[in-house]
Amino acid sequence: MAKPKTAITPTRDENYPEWYQQVVRRADLAETSPVRGCMVIKPWGCSLWENMQQGLDGMFKATGHRNAYFPLFIPKRFLEKEAEHVEGFAKECAVVTHHRLEAGPDGGLVPAGELEEPLVVRPTSETIIGDAFSRWIESYRDLPLLINQWANVVRWEMRTRLFLRTAEFLWQEGHTAHATADEAMAHTHKMLGVYQEFAERFMAMPVLTGSKTAGERFPGAVETLCIEAMMQDRKALQAGTSHFLGQNFAKAQDITYQSDQGQLEHCWTTSWGVSTRLIGAMIMCHGDDDGIICPPRLAPAHVVILPITGRSETPEAIHNYCRKLADDLRVQPYHGRHLEVEVDERDLRGGEKNWQWVRRGVPIRLEVGPRDMEADSVFMARRDRPAKDKVSVGRTEFLSSITQTLDEMQQGLFDRALAFREAHTAVIDSEEAFREWFTAPKGEPTPPHGGFALTHFCGDEGIEAKIADELGVTVRCVPFGDDEPGTCPFSGKPSPKRVVWAKAY
Amino acid sequence: MAKPKTAITPTRDENYPEWYQQVVRRADLAETSPVRGCMVIKPWGCSLWENMQQGLDGMFKATGHRNAYFPLFIPKRFLEKEAEHVEGFAKECAVVTHHRLEAGPDGGLVPAGELEEPLVVRPTSETIIGDAFSRWIESYRDLPLLINQWANVVRWEMRTRLFLRTAEFLWQEGHTAHATADEAMAHTHKMLGVYQEFAERFMAMPVLTGSKTAGERFPGAVETLCIEAMMQDRKALQAGTSHFLGQNFAKAQDITYQSDQGQLEHCWTTSWGVSTRLIGAMIMCHGDDDGIICPPRLAPAHVVILPITGRSETPEAIHNYCRKLADDLRVQPYHGRHLEVEVDERDLRGGEKNWQWVRRGVPIRLEVGPRDMEADSVFMARRDRPAKDKVSVGRTEFLSSITQTLDEMQQGLFDRALAFREAHTAVIDSEEAFREWFTAPKGEPTPPHGGFALTHFCGDEGIEAKIADELGVTVRCVPFGDDEPGTCPFSGKPSPKRVVWAKAY
Repeated sequence: MAKPKTAITPTRDENYPEWYQQVVRRADLAETSPVRGCMVIKPWGCSLWENMQQGLDGMFKATGHRNAYFPLFIPKRFLEKEAEHVEGFAKECAVVTHHRLEAGPDGGLVPAGELEEPLVVRPTSETIIGDAFSRWIESYRDLPLLINQWANVVRWEMRTRLFLRTAEFLWQEGHTAHATADEAMAHTHKMLGVYQEFAERFMAMPVLTGSKTAGERFPGAVETLCIEAMMQDRKALQAGTSHFLGQNFAKAQDITYQSDQGQLEHCWTTSWGVSTRLIGAMIMCHGDDDGIICPPRLAPAHVVILPITGRSETPEAIHNYCRKLADDLRVQPYHGRHLEVEVDERDLRGGEKNWQWVRRGVPIRLEVGPRDMEADSVFMARRDRPAKDKVSVGRTEFLSSITQTLDEMQQGLFDRALAFREAHTAVIDSEEAFREWFTAPKGEPTPPHGGFALTHFCGDEGIEAKIADELGVTVRCVPFGDDEPGTCPFSGKPSPKRVVWAKAY
Repeated sequence: MAKPKTAITPTRDENYPEWYQQVVRRADLAETSPVRGCMVIKPWGCSLWENMQQGLDGMFKATGHRNAYFPLFIPKRFLEKEAEHVEGFAKECAVVTHHRLEAGPDGGLVPAGELEEPLVVRPTSETIIGDAFSRWIESYRDLPLLINQWANVVRWEMRTRLFLRTAEFLWQEGHTAHATADEAMAHTHKMLGVYQEFAERFMAMPVLTGSKTAGERFPGAVETLCIEAMMQDRKALQAGTSHFLGQNFAKAQDITYQSDQGQLEHCWTTSWGVSTRLIGAMIMCHGDDDGIICPPRLAPAHVVILPITGRSETPEAIHNYCRKLADDLRVQPYHGRHLEVEVDERDLRGGEKNWQWVRRGVPIRLEVGPRDMEADSVFMARRDRPAKDKVSVGRTEFLSSITQTLDEMQQGLFDRALAFREAHTAVIDSEEAFREWFTAPKGEPTPPHGGFALTHFCGDEGIEAKIADELGVTVRCVPFGDDEPGTCPFSGKPSPKRVVWAKAY
């Protein structure tokens, strides 16, 4: 059988990392820029991010948070206040040292106006927001303080990949302060729950939830919780983290409150964030060899209408028919917004246009030619089915069933991703089986193979480091909930519960 | 008569600049941060900005623009490409020179990893976006290219004032490319029209529109158009600008397209922006001695409900009554969103709560005590009337008239601001009268006095500089439209039309 033609070359099987780069490029999501490590997010990618923002922002507000905005720059002395924190970020931060450019000896411009204290472009904002919290919080009446910020951050990454790892990225960072450890910990869990709900309901992406081992914790955190998703190369992607910071930052920055007993106490704080990395997760969770597949809840457009006027004697009638159809769709509510519709009237070949929307992952494509118009019907293709599967549907029937169809697609994407994860998750009880799971069969490319492995684990950091070194596999999370105690296959020591191992982005 | 008590000290008359600082602080809009010149935008201020963003973003999308996101950093060589542009921004930009911190000789951290080429934190993005345009545009079919970016920018200002002039601020910057000069110029005007409509309809702030004189143009622009509003100290505030860039940036950055004739041509570009400065404009256009007044179209909350449970035997019944009222309000549509309602159940004195909402400018405040509940009515105060003017309104009547009341308030704020501007605008024909207009009467504080002066003007830059130097007054704009030619009162030379002079922020 001849290899079927795909819109993306190479395919996922042929070369997954290169497939990813090509999908991002050909779906017009983003591109590299002349600034090392910084990306340009193109309109289609920006629109996906805006839809993610809107969904998340609604959930943050529904859980009592308010948005604020804090300075881009962090004085060096702030970063230095929390020892682990600065240790974690000092190695990769953009440092502002001057505040103007002036003509240099060779005529070009050189930095001038040296700052007394260097400023770091925020890699995260615990310290600058903590400083504000120390001023805003006076008594227990001011608690809990629940703040979120939408912002850009910079971490000077050497090896970058669009959306997954870039020097500058967009994100939200939640920062909260509480009167007690229990309340702060409960909030850390609550926000992880928000992320899980967002991943599963909006992104149609099933996630595991759990806590990180010590080595994978956020610098300065007491505990880091995470959501982890499986990509189609069976690697794990950390899609969001929620940190219980204990009193580490509160003590470093003097965030105190007067209790109802009149005592001065340190607050307990949390922070949590998701970023444009979620776009990378969405691409690798659902995309196929024809491009990305947008979950309907996040799609920049739900429906694209392609007027096929080629041999028609009345092209204007077809255009009008399509525009009217678009208007009838746009008034339909869909999960708190309305259906978004594109009518592609560009003067391009129909095939070229069609494939462009396939690659961009629009859930529903409609072709309308003279015969469709006469029959008052549309020729419909669903992005979750092969590109050539098209069916004729009566206009009225289409209009009355479209939101249900989209909901089915949303659920279908989730179900498919969940089935994939389950098919590539193994419960493993011996080191030999574990090594075999994560080693590619001879002659087969690597990845894909393996996936998630659930084993007992004694928690020894040396073992974890050795496995990471030898197999490139790490503990992605220690799942929540009860489990039977058992024996660690690596050390033979007792283990309280199973952990999830995987290769990871 | 005793001086009436005001929520803000000093009053506008006593000390306008200090009144402004106090209003910003006491309305909880923003505060200075430990980072020189950078502000913290607090939740109430952030919410105002989000509402502005939402209004503007809808208008940008309705005029065919799409959002994208470009790097925060601009390589030095990019900035240098357009001579006037770099001249305008080099003096005040944050320069990143290193990409990590490491332990220095005295144990503290010092910048390390020096960059081969310094990066400038974007003061504006013409050059970095122009670089993308030069890649994105190939033929006339790609034009016009209509892009907008929501972002933070940094201009190293030495003398800062919250919202009005800060080192970092939030803004949007539109960037478009066109095939012809006429089309680009028409687009420059169109976007100024969008700004005017936004200022007048959303902010209830009347603006003059016109073009800037050469000295006030954006660095690198051929023509700068602007909207100018009068503040209550009679000074002008430039609230938005729209630039026709000609082919200056296209030539500097090689932004070309192939015409339908097959010729390679340079594009014509525009850029336009508004920023968080609009919040400062809103404050100074409408605020009074009790705090800010939010135009209903931008208000973070339209209605605040204060349950008065002081002497009640059934506080829970009152709270429930208030919550039910809030729910009934929240389902009401209001200009594309729904009514936003706060129920303030905090355990604070009623007077303290009430004044807090007055200072924050919520359009409608409702008090509900036992007797109101019994009578099924609310005790209502409007923020555009004195704080003590409260009327009892039946619940049903209130619910059915609230959106109309808000619309009346919105119009009332506009009308009041327009009347103020008209009362303080003079048509002047002699230099003597001009100097008198802009000079405070003896013994009177300065400002307020004067306002806008419309005079003929020959356009001589030396005269403009001399007047700026002596009186602190500049040409704010050359209004659009036809006018009678006349004689310049400063030079005696012919003048094509009148211009608008004022002191300015």
